[in-house]
Amino acid sequence: MTQHPSAPTHHLGDEAIHTYFDNSLPPALTIQAGDTVVFATREPSNGATARRLAANPPADLDPDLVILIAAAARPEVSTPMGGHALTGPVYVAGAVPGDALDVTIIEVRPTAWGWTGVGPKNPLLGDLFPEWTTHYWDLRAGDHAPFGQDIRIPLAPFCGVMGVAPAEPGMHPTPPPRRGGGNMDIRQLTAGTVLTLPVLVPGALFSTGDAHAAQGDGEVSGTAIECDATVTLRFDLRKGAAPAWPSFRTAGPLAPRTDTGPHFAATGHDTDPRAAARAALLGVFDYLERERGLTRPRACILASACVDLRISQVVNAGLWTITAFLPLSIFVREDR
Amino acid sequence: MTQHPSAPTHHLGDEAIHTYFDNSLPPALTIQAGDTVVFATREPSNGATARRLAANPPADLDPDLVILIAAAARPEVSTPMGGHALTGPVYVAGAVPGDALDVTIIEVRPTAWGWTGVGPKNPLLGDLFPEWTTHYWDLRAGDHAPFGQDIRIPLAPFCGVMGVAPAEPGMHPTPPPRRGGGNMDIRQLTAGTVLTLPVLVPGALFSTGDAHAAQGDGEVSGTAIECDATVTLRFDLRKGAAPAWPSFRTAGPLAPRTDTGPHFAATGHDTDPRAAARAALLGVFDYLERERGLTRPRACILASACVDLRISQVVNAGLWTITAFLPLSIFVREDR
Repeated sequence: MTQHPSAPTHHLGDEAIHTYFDNSLPPALTIQAGDTVVFATREPSNGATARRLAANPPADLDPDLVILIAAAARPEVSTPMGGHALTGPVYVAGAVPGDALDVTIIEVRPTAWGWTGVGPKNPLLGDLFPEWTTHYWDLRAGDHAPFGQDIRIPLAPFCGVMGVAPAEPGMHPTPPPRRGGGNMDIRQLTAGTVLTLPVLVPGALFSTGDAHAAQGDGEVSGTAIECDATVTLRFDLRKGAAPAWPSFRTAGPLAPRTDTGPHFAATGHDTDPRAAARAALLGVFDYLERERGLTRPRACILASACVDLRISQVVNAGLWTITAFLPLSIFVREDR
Repeated sequence: MTQHPSAPTHHLGDEAIHTYFDNSLPPALTIQAGDTVVFATREPSNGATARRLAANPPADLDPDLVILIAAAARPEVSTPMGGHALTGPVYVAGAVPGDALDVTIIEVRPTAWGWTGVGPKNPLLGDLFPEWTTHYWDLRAGDHAPFGQDIRIPLAPFCGVMGVAPAEPGMHPTPPPRRGGGNMDIRQLTAGTVLTLPVLVPGALFSTGDAHAAQGDGEVSGTAIECDATVTLRFDLRKGAAPAWPSFRTAGPLAPRTDTGPHFAATGHDTDPRAAARAALLGVFDYLERERGLTRPRACILASACVDLRISQVVNAGLWTITAFLPLSIFVREDR
């Protein structure tokens, strides 16, 4: 991959929003390999969360934060398929199927606020949350988000969705991730990481969005710290080097801001990995409820922002052991 | 949990090997809460690997290492159910069902050699490995294991099996992990971590074994760096505080010796998490074969020792995104 210090920088904003993948979408921008693009990206509800808050501001929220959120209450737009609001597509000149598209993540800069929700539609835990709960995050500190008085989540922003257009014609919904990337929600795709995607159609037709200010491995509530953002990416091509599935290379350690001290962890074993993951998460929720006084919805929202789900083993007598890790460094007080 | 600086230390060795869990096994040792026990633990083949090597030493193995391994070729013992060779059980006076047993991992010290194998019985990848391949590891450096000339795996030893007797009567095989622990293969159970298990029968009846000198999350080949070891554990009780499933608290960051620099990662998405994990692992194997010149069996053996499987997301349209992380710091040469 050649460095191109003098290559141009392009900008893409609201004019380039689309809500599905489709290889017949006209390019919003055409670039050369080596170019950089600054994307204005939208949180996945595309303003609906801000509109709801503006219509009925919670009494317990900082009035200055309410004003900031209400300013993002963009008018509702009717969009086909109603998926994530994606910015793009970007046509990379010369890209053909079989090439590798290297996407260097230069910066992901959230705006001043974010949100996380959990409710009955959650595919892993929905039965535990019969009512929808939304938490609004204050991101104005820049490097962390407070959660009540005693908890701070370090920010590690990335894009939940980064992908190229599928080879198959037609409109494709945004929620499922695919071979060409998409809604992967891989939290290590932070600044410095180089993501490699296979090019599947001429020009690659890359789009991004769904920025997350922070997320644990698993995104267990179904939403991370969802936010509007400014995202700077550089695009390079390697001819004929397409991987079968997305791969990436990080610039350094995997969680330099949360893996800094002791963790509480809980585990579960089951032939069904969803059941094992649920047992592990319930162990973490129990800890957060019992030891930290959180309600269960708040425990789940916190977990989605910072608890990592890992596969401890997948080879023992047909069972999965899945472990959920809570970094205790998020607790501000010393009695942690 | 009270500290007991003057509490006694006990020793348990070969005399206390058993190969199944059973709450009618007579205790090999009875201790008080607060006591420490030093266990001699056996690798899971209980000498068979060393016997095979002694009968037909590989020509390419360091003769000094061959001598060390051959010295561990203990005579074959006929054992019921033929599971992991476990040391115990330890009866903790006063423990009753409903109590929490806190096991503080003070030290896990491997002997001078270890082994990892992969073959057709592997439940995740067996079809890729029609023949059994064994790698013998030289652990004499103490803090790392070389893998060829250019790769070094930092050691982070722990016990693959730590568990209490099940409440259900009868003989239970060792491979499946259970609510009371057992063959969990959780690689963060290293020195300094406190593991909490629910007590399920009077006295808890704790056993341990299957020490691993190093392992990645997932133990993807089905074996880690398997080794005989000396294991020092302290036992404390908390009355009525049994967790539903095992939980633990680490003493510090999760992977201080491998999460020190860039990682190569590959990912997969599928409704079947095994298919997603396979895609992710194949991406890492491809990297190790193409960029590092390893054969596929050696790539799998290396991955089992140091590649972490993580659940990136479990909430997107019924698909699992599973990512495999290879720490590039294991490569000694600078061109990594």
